[in-house]
Amino acid sequence: MHTNRVEKVIEGMQKMGLSQLLVSSPASVFYLTGRLIQPGERMLALLVKASGEVCLFANRLFALKGNVDVPLVEFDDTEDCVAVLADRLEDGRIGIDKFWPSQFTIRLMEQRAALRPVVGSAAVDGARLYKDAEEIRFMQESSKKNDETIEAVIAQLYAGMSEMDGADLYLREAALRGASGPSFDPLVCFGANCAEPHHSSDRVTKLCQGDAVIIDVGLVWQDYCSDMTRTVFLGQPTDEQKRVYELVQKANAAGRAAVHPGVPVSEVDRAARKVIEDGGSGPYFIHRTGHGIGLECHEYPDVSRTGNAICKPGMCFSVEPGIYLPGKFGVRVEDLVCVTEDGAITLNSVSRDLRII
Amino acid sequence: MHTNRVEKVIEGMQKMGLSQLLVSSPASVFYLTGRLIQPGERMLALLVKASGEVCLFANRLFALKGNVDVPLVEFDDTEDCVAVLADRLEDGRIGIDKFWPSQFTIRLMEQRAALRPVVGSAAVDGARLYKDAEEIRFMQESSKKNDETIEAVIAQLYAGMSEMDGADLYLREAALRGASGPSFDPLVCFGANCAEPHHSSDRVTKLCQGDAVIIDVGLVWQDYCSDMTRTVFLGQPTDEQKRVYELVQKANAAGRAAVHPGVPVSEVDRAARKVIEDGGSGPYFIHRTGHGIGLECHEYPDVSRTGNAICKPGMCFSVEPGIYLPGKFGVRVEDLVCVTEDGAITLNSVSRDLRII
Repeated sequence: MHTNRVEKVIEGMQKMGLSQLLVSSPASVFYLTGRLIQPGERMLALLVKASGEVCLFANRLFALKGNVDVPLVEFDDTEDCVAVLADRLEDGRIGIDKFWPSQFTIRLMEQRAALRPVVGSAAVDGARLYKDAEEIRFMQESSKKNDETIEAVIAQLYAGMSEMDGADLYLREAALRGASGPSFDPLVCFGANCAEPHHSSDRVTKLCQGDAVIIDVGLVWQDYCSDMTRTVFLGQPTDEQKRVYELVQKANAAGRAAVHPGVPVSEVDRAARKVIEDGGSGPYFIHRTGHGIGLECHEYPDVSRTGNAICKPGMCFSVEPGIYLPGKFGVRVEDLVCVTEDGAITLNSVSRDLRII
Repeated sequence: MHTNRVEKVIEGMQKMGLSQLLVSSPASVFYLTGRLIQPGERMLALLVKASGEVCLFANRLFALKGNVDVPLVEFDDTEDCVAVLADRLEDGRIGIDKFWPSQFTIRLMEQRAALRPVVGSAAVDGARLYKDAEEIRFMQESSKKNDETIEAVIAQLYAGMSEMDGADLYLREAALRGASGPSFDPLVCFGANCAEPHHSSDRVTKLCQGDAVIIDVGLVWQDYCSDMTRTVFLGQPTDEQKRVYELVQKANAAGRAAVHPGVPVSEVDRAARKVIEDGGSGPYFIHRTGHGIGLECHEYPDVSRTGNAICKPGMCFSVEPGIYLPGKFGVRVEDLVCVTEDGAITLNSVSRDLRII
């Protein structure tokens, strides 16, 4: 168990007035216990009490006995796991992991009417927000591998391939480099599909001359996620494509340049957004500038107009402005940054210059 | 929208006394709307009312406008999505998707104190339980591809490789065959690790002479999942390994043979378990016999001692008995079956005979 991390979580609980918290996200349980358990549909909960008491509730199937240095309560598929947990809770407010499947929260309330669930994840998310030296090293290595992988993918793009061919290519190249998996389904989009920020790679769209290609990919290395986007062009881009690309490239640079300790993340969003707005494309930048990343691909903070976090050393997040012209094309350029004592480092080093393949 | 499927869900809601239900699992939303949306941490909910009214609540980012034939309410990251949804609900009981992240259920209750959430997924799960002809065809194709992939993996096993090498191999071979991804992280386990049913493939364990090798893998094809396990041996197995293997092989056959329309799934569990108990290894078969499968790798029914579903045509589930000898080795043999009008078909055709590599 990482005692110092548990202490940070308890500090967060105290600020929220919580005497008990159920942590269930596998990444958060891993963060605190050092043990990654993927419970599937089964119940998993780490009970943290403000008194310092910690107890892990897990199915016997995961064979944790003797393998975790945290008090353990096991149950099997024939038992009412919620009842086992309910027995150990105090009446009143209880912090619940934002991602805990509702079935457990609802059954808990049915069994213990005096429990008052509130969303309690901020206590853990607040701790996970600031990466320590080892975590930063893993983040750097993960992004370095992602850099190498995206270069390998760009080198193998060809006219006529499908978006899914591109996504498969990324998965293979990431596996070859020892990644334990992608950090999200790789997004490889061509042409007009690039105008949909969340378009899933499909098998029918083929890469054509003149297409923009968005490659938004990440992998998992030593449990830590990377995430980056590059946009390249098959053949000479049009003047409009060039103009849009350069605007996004500048917005990415401005966003990253704004990252300093003490700066609100909303200012990072503003810095990137201002470039695009000043260039007349404001209405086409339709999402936030970025998101935190670490053990999970999407973590605190929310780097948006309304994001209220303040940059502090150890924070890692994406800077990913984009411009999306429906029916035509889209451009996004994304890098990860890590806040340092005197500014920030960019974890990706793949060129952001306009690239024609 | 699949109107006939929505009608089946409403029948289920009526049996549960539910006038409103929130469906949120991407697979269930896909099942009803034909549209696969992976919302990540964002809110996604398909509201189904017993009156027949259906409405999809989704973030504008997913660009669904004009792309779904179901009434749509969109919101963006700056809006309170829960408030948008709360406006459309009636006071009183509301069915909630078992997997909906608790943050949404808790915030909904905070905003609408007169809502009484109950776990409502059974209405959708009950419909998804019985696959139609097209779904069965996809299930068959998915398992056929999985058969081909596991054969390719077995052919490439070698002494000295790590478990993760085996898992990576599976991912590459599945991608080469056009799978859209694995249906779960491939489990390739060697030697004593085989005795942990949920051991994750690691990089440190190397394949050695005399090891049992468990390969538990599945892929996604046309949105439908496969899942199978074979246990093979590197070099001549010991008498104990042989005895255990043959017991599990017989248990698998007995379980599959028990599958007929009208038979409770608990009988399928019993049939497989009896073989292992009669062979004296009952205490080492430490999990249920199987689980339903379809759009998701784990669905209804629960094929266990306490599973209360009755086999009916169209039901697909796994039969996967195993014996686990802590510190020594383990064996599991898993196939998928689909209940037919007059029995069942096994979707996998890879040999279950003792295999020495």
